[in-house]
Amino acid sequence: MLIAALIDGLTVNDANRALSIEDRGLSYGDGLFETMALRGGAVRFLDEHLARLRLGCERLKFRVPPETTLRNDIAALTRGHSEGIVKLIVTRGMGGRGYRGDAALTATRIALLYPPLHGETSNGIRLRWCATRLARNSLLAGIKHLNRLEQVLAQSEWSDAEIAEGLMLDTEGEVISATASNVFIVNDGVLMTPDLRFSGVCGVLRQHVLLTASKIGLVVEERALRPEDLLGATECFVTNALRGIRPVVALDERCWPIGHVTKRLMAELTL
Amino acid sequence: MLIAALIDGLTVNDANRALSIEDRGLSYGDGLFETMALRGGAVRFLDEHLARLRLGCERLKFRVPPETTLRNDIAALTRGHSEGIVKLIVTRGMGGRGYRGDAALTATRIALLYPPLHGETSNGIRLRWCATRLARNSLLAGIKHLNRLEQVLAQSEWSDAEIAEGLMLDTEGEVISATASNVFIVNDGVLMTPDLRFSGVCGVLRQHVLLTASKIGLVVEERALRPEDLLGATECFVTNALRGIRPVVALDERCWPIGHVTKRLMAELTL
Repeated sequence: MLIAALIDGLTVNDANRALSIEDRGLSYGDGLFETMALRGGAVRFLDEHLARLRLGCERLKFRVPPETTLRNDIAALTRGHSEGIVKLIVTRGMGGRGYRGDAALTATRIALLYPPLHGETSNGIRLRWCATRLARNSLLAGIKHLNRLEQVLAQSEWSDAEIAEGLMLDTEGEVISATASNVFIVNDGVLMTPDLRFSGVCGVLRQHVLLTASKIGLVVEERALRPEDLLGATECFVTNALRGIRPVVALDERCWPIGHVTKRLMAELTL
Repeated sequence: MLIAALIDGLTVNDANRALSIEDRGLSYGDGLFETMALRGGAVRFLDEHLARLRLGCERLKFRVPPETTLRNDIAALTRGHSEGIVKLIVTRGMGGRGYRGDAALTATRIALLYPPLHGETSNGIRLRWCATRLARNSLLAGIKHLNRLEQVLAQSEWSDAEIAEGLMLDTEGEVISATASNVFIVNDGVLMTPDLRFSGVCGVLRQHVLLTASKIGLVVEERALRPEDLLGATECFVTNALRGIRPVVALDERCWPIGHVTKRLMAELTL
């Protein structure tokens, strides 16, 4: 399924699809990643993805590779391809044993190209609640780091292909996001999405939707949301960089039509 | 510094020190590890390490490799060596994109041999407080999984070689452990160590100390501990599998002599 791969800018072929077993990305999840949509030969929201990656490197206190290097990696990886999924992993680098990362380490860059998603529709998706909770740690909130066991465990909770996503609460019972998407609701005409001070990933499409919503004059609130806020909402949708905006038409027994605000934002996004 | 390495039981040589870039250990920290002391040709507390690894695999819901396979890996890795550090990593296996782990995946086994630690004394060590907090998630507490960014960030807080370890609080302000050691105190003659219901790693040596303490008639409590409990303690020590019991003689301005209970437990451990 993997179409092409580069490690530190060098092509990885089938005979040598390999990473150092001492890379800190493996040892401790000591790194970050971005998953991006390649469409018409260009990576969508590339600037925003690189900005989030840079923020993540700063938060984890390691030197972000030069932006031109990352752009060159992606250009080399996607050459000759117009549609697909680009995954970029940046780790603190190769280390020995021990949690402390040597400040002199050079970050490892891994760029992976996968085929595009298929079978996407905008007819709306079904969600469920996950039992797996997200821990709270403001130090790790918002960035897209490699410590993803909570998401892995949450997705292991169901296998019904009719359920597209699972909603996750944090350990205090607040709604944070779906396993691989951010969540939005419309309540009394206000667009609301969970604030991500303590957990969750600050999605590139989430930011884009917030910006677009403000531009078109919607009232927007990033705030704590409880399950009852979702159940009382008039519209609900989820976002991610690969699948865009997906209207939510059902959450367990609760059903929604695809609402006006959702439709409006979807139309803006495809412009 | 790496002396020898095996991936899935096969020797990794310098020309081929390599792991799949699609291994879920790298993608999501989707795996577990054990760090063990090789002494006199035998791995100390091997049964206990393998038991914790098994518990971790169950918690993460993936099939633990057969115990004989893991023992064979370690035997092959350490052949001809009598002293060192054995690190065993077990991941859910090689996956494609996406958090959900296919139930049919075969776990990846990575066995690494490093030289032994040197310069260890039992004269006592100095600790500091870390600003980095541990998040609370009972699902991940106790097991030694690969999501270790909190420990990485905590160890990045200091570089003074005189400070051997840093103590970590959880996000609610409870003392949980040091960055790579468990912590014990003696208070009113009672041996106390933080309970690890919400965070922290349930150390192999921690368990051994608790067992030994009960055997020799000490009153033992696993409970919530606050910083003031530490400051008010009459003895303090930390434990890990490589370094054994290390008396704490200073925590910032607070100093302790090496106490009777600590000495007694150290003597029991070296028997």
